Amino acid sequence: MHSLDAIFKPRSIAVIGATPRPRSIGREILNNLFANEFNGKIFPVNPKYEYIHSTKAYPSVTNIPDPVDLAVIVVPAPLVLGVVEECAKKGVKGLVIITAGFREIGPEGAKLEDAIIDVAKRHGMRMIGPNCMGVIDATPDVRMNATFSPGVPPTGTVAFMTQSGALGVAILLAVQKLGLGFSYFASVGNKADVGAMDLLEYWENDAHTQLIAMYLESFGDPRRFTELSKRISKTKPIVVVKSGTSAAGARAASSHTGSLAGLEVASEALLQQCGVNRVSSIEEMIHVVAGFVGAPMPRGNRLCIVTNAGGPGIMAVDAADGHGLQIAALSEKTRAAMRKVLPAEASVDNPVDMVAGAGPDQYERVLDLVLADDSVDVTIAIFVPPLMIEPLEVMRRITRVARAHEKPVYSVLMAEESYYERIPREVPDAVPIFRFPEDAVKVAEHTNRYRLWRARPAGTVRTFPVDTARALSLVERKAKAGGGYLAPEDTHAVLGAYGFPTVGHAVVPIDGDLRAAARSLAFPVVLKVVGEKIVHKSDVGGVMLGIRNEKALELARETMRASLSKAGVLTHATGYLVQEMAGDSNGKEVILGVAQDPKFGPLLMCGMGGRYVEILRDVAFRVLPITDLDAHDMVRSFRSFPLLEGVRGEPRVDVEFVEELILRLAQLVDEIPGIQELDMNPVIVTPTRAGCRVVDARIRALGA
Amino acid sequence: MHSLDAIFKPRSIAVIGATPRPRSIGREILNNLFANEFNGKIFPVNPKYEYIHSTKAYPSVTNIPDPVDLAVIVVPAPLVLGVVEECAKKGVKGLVIITAGFREIGPEGAKLEDAIIDVAKRHGMRMIGPNCMGVIDATPDVRMNATFSPGVPPTGTVAFMTQSGALGVAILLAVQKLGLGFSYFASVGNKADVGAMDLLEYWENDAHTQLIAMYLESFGDPRRFTELSKRISKTKPIVVVKSGTSAAGARAASSHTGSLAGLEVASEALLQQCGVNRVSSIEEMIHVVAGFVGAPMPRGNRLCIVTNAGGPGIMAVDAADGHGLQIAALSEKTRAAMRKVLPAEASVDNPVDMVAGAGPDQYERVLDLVLADDSVDVTIAIFVPPLMIEPLEVMRRITRVARAHEKPVYSVLMAEESYYERIPREVPDAVPIFRFPEDAVKVAEHTNRYRLWRARPAGTVRTFPVDTARALSLVERKAKAGGGYLAPEDTHAVLGAYGFPTVGHAVVPIDGDLRAAARSLAFPVVLKVVGEKIVHKSDVGGVMLGIRNEKALELARETMRASLSKAGVLTHATGYLVQEMAGDSNGKEVILGVAQDPKFGPLLMCGMGGRYVEILRDVAFRVLPITDLDAHDMVRSFRSFPLLEGVRGEPRVDVEFVEELILRLAQLVDEIPGIQELDMNPVIVTPTRAGCRVVDARIRALGA
Repeated sequence: MHSLDAIFKPRSIAVIGATPRPRSIGREILNNLFANEFNGKIFPVNPKYEYIHSTKAYPSVTNIPDPVDLAVIVVPAPLVLGVVEECAKKGVKGLVIITAGFREIGPEGAKLEDAIIDVAKRHGMRMIGPNCMGVIDATPDVRMNATFSPGVPPTGTVAFMTQSGALGVAILLAVQKLGLGFSYFASVGNKADVGAMDLLEYWENDAHTQLIAMYLESFGDPRRFTELSKRISKTKPIVVVKSGTSAAGARAASSHTGSLAGLEVASEALLQQCGVNRVSSIEEMIHVVAGFVGAPMPRGNRLCIVTNAGGPGIMAVDAADGHGLQIAALSEKTRAAMRKVLPAEASVDNPVDMVAGAGPDQYERVLDLVLADDSVDVTIAIFVPPLMIEPLEVMRRITRVARAHEKPVYSVLMAEESYYERIPREVPDAVPIFRFPEDAVKVAEHTNRYRLWRARPAGTVRTFPVDTARALSLVERKAKAGGGYLAPEDTHAVLGAYGFPTVGHAVVPIDGDLRAAARSLAFPVVLKVVGEKIVHKSDVGGVMLGIRNEKALELARETMRASLSKAGVLTHATGYLVQEMAGDSNGKEVILGVAQDPKFGPLLMCGMGGRYVEILRDVAFRVLPITDLDAHDMVRSFRSFPLLEGVRGEPRVDVEFVEELILRLAQLVDEIPGIQELDMNPVIVTPTRAGCRVVDARIRALGA
Repeated sequence: MHSLDAIFKPRSIAVIGATPRPRSIGREILNNLFANEFNGKIFPVNPKYEYIHSTKAYPSVTNIPDPVDLAVIVVPAPLVLGVVEECAKKGVKGLVIITAGFREIGPEGAKLEDAIIDVAKRHGMRMIGPNCMGVIDATPDVRMNATFSPGVPPTGTVAFMTQSGALGVAILLAVQKLGLGFSYFASVGNKADVGAMDLLEYWENDAHTQLIAMYLESFGDPRRFTELSKRISKTKPIVVVKSGTSAAGARAASSHTGSLAGLEVASEALLQQCGVNRVSSIEEMIHVVAGFVGAPMPRGNRLCIVTNAGGPGIMAVDAADGHGLQIAALSEKTRAAMRKVLPAEASVDNPVDMVAGAGPDQYERVLDLVLADDSVDVTIAIFVPPLMIEPLEVMRRITRVARAHEKPVYSVLMAEESYYERIPREVPDAVPIFRFPEDAVKVAEHTNRYRLWRARPAGTVRTFPVDTARALSLVERKAKAGGGYLAPEDTHAVLGAYGFPTVGHAVVPIDGDLRAAARSLAFPVVLKVVGEKIVHKSDVGGVMLGIRNEKALELARETMRASLSKAGVLTHATGYLVQEMAGDSNGKEVILGVAQDPKFGPLLMCGMGGRYVEILRDVAFRVLPITDLDAHDMVRSFRSFPLLEGVRGEPRVDVEFVEELILRLAQLVDEIPGIQELDMNPVIVTPTRAGCRVVDARIRALGA
């Protein structure tokens, strides 16, 4: 038995704070439990009443003669701790605390919440909330609606979790209208105990649940979320609205639920790596969920549009442009067969325009032909009802023919309002129905993306033989010294220990012998100033390229000294770095880097490098762990990836080595936790691995 | 009197093809005219009936004893021409041809349509259609619903034109539901006579029309559309769904309406230059229209969100991120005043979270404070109804306080379906209401963008003193020779005549004296092969840079000859071009170019240039005419514009000169119509105007 069964599968429920007062939460929850015919015993608890809803009421949970599995608590905030203690005494194993006024209102509330968590933990009680709108288990054996939401949530196969109670209500209402149904619903509020991870695990193998949908404002533990959702989304789609993503939004999220939201770029990377279907609005979530549960998964990306009106067909084709879908080229056989069914003025090319006269028969016969065509993977059937044709019958036929094939059909109905209400009642098992062509196309994009994710092999986290001890000792030494940027020779050594190809170099003190230092290097060389406080060296004239001989090297030092002095940073200079130039006219500049996100841990970046990296912003991010496939995809997501592949007669650079460097960097930050920041820019990548070089790099260590 | 008054302001209408057959178009149009109480006489025409809809019917329009202003024609296609001729005889001045089966079905239909156009033109009749769903004039003096759409279109201030009849029906239905109303509605079908331009002009000064909305699949005359919409959108918002934009979509558009759709990039550029509010879906159009007509224009971009639920507030902030809106910083005075109205757990920072208990009073008082705050330009009021609070009363109060201020308030209501239907009836003059936070934010983005357009000065089309005759003669000479790429010296001359700074150069025949040719030039030089058929010269080794002296020049020719021979293009080489190198390490590479679009005419491009222009795709397009402000905005729309402004210690290049070059290029293509294609890449732009150079260019002339 799972510990969350105490919450979702109780045999008896106490509603503590139940009242008969109309439109109060305590009454609505009790009503919803009775109205939904909960398959078990319900005990109202309130010392003020002898009975509520014709049911004997008890002054305290401890007075209930029978065992109580779950307590739903709606008493005022100051009374909650006492009630929870009584529940513990009674042996209750599950708590749903609806009451608000805890962590979300400040430190005092947080203290109270912590006291409650403590009692719950000590007595092995699992808890949902506080500050939530309740839970639903709509599976046939349980039928528990312990929420105060209006309306009756239909039973279905979607498990839904929300971090916002208000959005939960809105979604329950919207979903009801569509005829979509739930297996479970949980409003988790402050997530004092049960959060997204627990529910993901609980629903992973649940036979009633086909899809998991979530509204999240923050990730609890991103690493655990990654592992769980990667595993689960291989078998069940996960649809997530991640909110609090903008800088301004993140501020709002933190003042709202008392949790800090992660960086947008980090959550985007995380969700992408995990195969999670991320949507950007509640409306899109509802559409995508409808598409997933109401139709089979597509087996390819070739889209066919069947319509009785040209305009909406064109809108659909437009919307499909450039989002991974292809407009299917129908076979001559299919087109010939359609010609027999359709009038002369119809178009049998995709989008198939059956023209306004098309009725139920044409929809059924044409869709049958299209769905039988091997060149079609997914179909959108658009219907704008003309005067003479009955929409419900068309929808019935579309559904019938769709169910006879193993391919998804999404329908678009542009009709009078009343039809949308009638369809869930009058067309059993209807295909997903949308109001606008763009909605259906968006869903096709999502299901196609998810199909690709499912088909993608898991990939391997590769590791390489490296000198961890050497790198670790250098970073730790810096950490013990209070942290900061590693000296150039230590930076080189750390990178060298992990197999990064650094350039030949020598470091000399501020007045050291440059000529002697350069003797072991091959000209031309680069001269760079060394100084922890000088971050953007080239901005202050601290980098000079293409120095061809020893004499020029001395001259370069003089010039640099003058520039640094002019920029007022000469006193920060502690020495000079002389470096061989990584010279290959076929080389391309790449950047590799790491930043620490407070919530996500190390965030790995790779992209097109060089001076203008901040302006071109052609980079990609990933969170750890990173597999070889992640690295492969990451490189190919650069806008300028064709430059690496070679354009206009240029040779291809060693892209596979870039992928290896990503994996080596992932291994480095995983094994050496003290790295706060790491930048390699540029990394010159050439057609052969032997020519590749890290030209400039810096590593910042956390203070110990 | 406007010629379109015959269509929209008739005193008498003949419905030719009217029938009593239930659910037929001929009956529905007649019914709609009567049901809407058209303010004039209606004459059914059908030889088969003595009366229809209790009204005397006539066998032909010529039998009607009274004058007829407008004929609505629904007879079968083969009969239409005869009917139109009878209308001419009768002196009818307006035609609405509903019947389909003309240009949209192929050449035969087109022939029939042309014959009808001919009759109409000869007799001064204006015509809507054929292949359309009719027209509505909902203004109080006319009240004509000559469509076969179900339902009663409410009267309002939106004039709507659609190129797709089916979408027209869908939009009428959707708009009805929202309580939005029309002044006019026109489904233009094949646009044989009346099209978008005519309607724009007709509605421009119409006192009943506050906003013009259009569904377009193609522009009739882009230049006229530019002029008209630029002028009109300064006083009335124009909202356009432009469809048929994708390559695939354009194919569909052409098979649908018999008109070719323009390139996506061209229509995007066109609409942007004209201040048109372009939307990407029908749903977005409906939202944006509701936002424009239901609230005043904002005076700035500072957004305040007031909500009773945290989640939707965060969703709104997230959606507003990065689209030109700012999250307003509320004044301390406002926040202090809100604290007195709201409970302790509320957040008085923006987004203002009043928490779930907030009722009508809180909404009214808090919105009053927010709207009075000078730091707020636009407000979104979100309401998720809790158990105890009546949604209609909240909406009434939001409306009342909004109407008392001069600032826009968009509301978001996340409630049971029934409320959306009741609001248009029960809350008079309600503020615009949306179902999801993202919808309201999208509308705020549109109104803000339009505000900026309105505030933007018109700009000037600048011209420069140039040698048009010289350039014209060179292009015309090539045109007479059958067209093609101009020779390098002619290309230089044309550009020179228009003030483009070209580099010093010399052209020599394939075995000519290179040393002699280079004598007048300053080394280093570049050697390029000349040959009309060799388009991508550097791909075949036909460009060699950095040649430092005469000897190296001879050597370069030998090497190049070998490369060209290897690439199999040596026989296409007709000579060599020796060019000075445009050398300035502070220079940046820009591209300027022109392409002819079959529908839009010359399309001007400017962007970041160089070898990789196709991969970086950091360019902007405009259609003619181009003002100085367009050029200014165009340059600033490059993703990499900061590079031109100077980053990391680099100096700023002469951006104003780039703007001038754009205007000079616009003048060139305007004055020399025979240019089919023109490319200048790279144009080296330096900190001073004197250093700027067009390094490579080609011009292709159309054959005469």
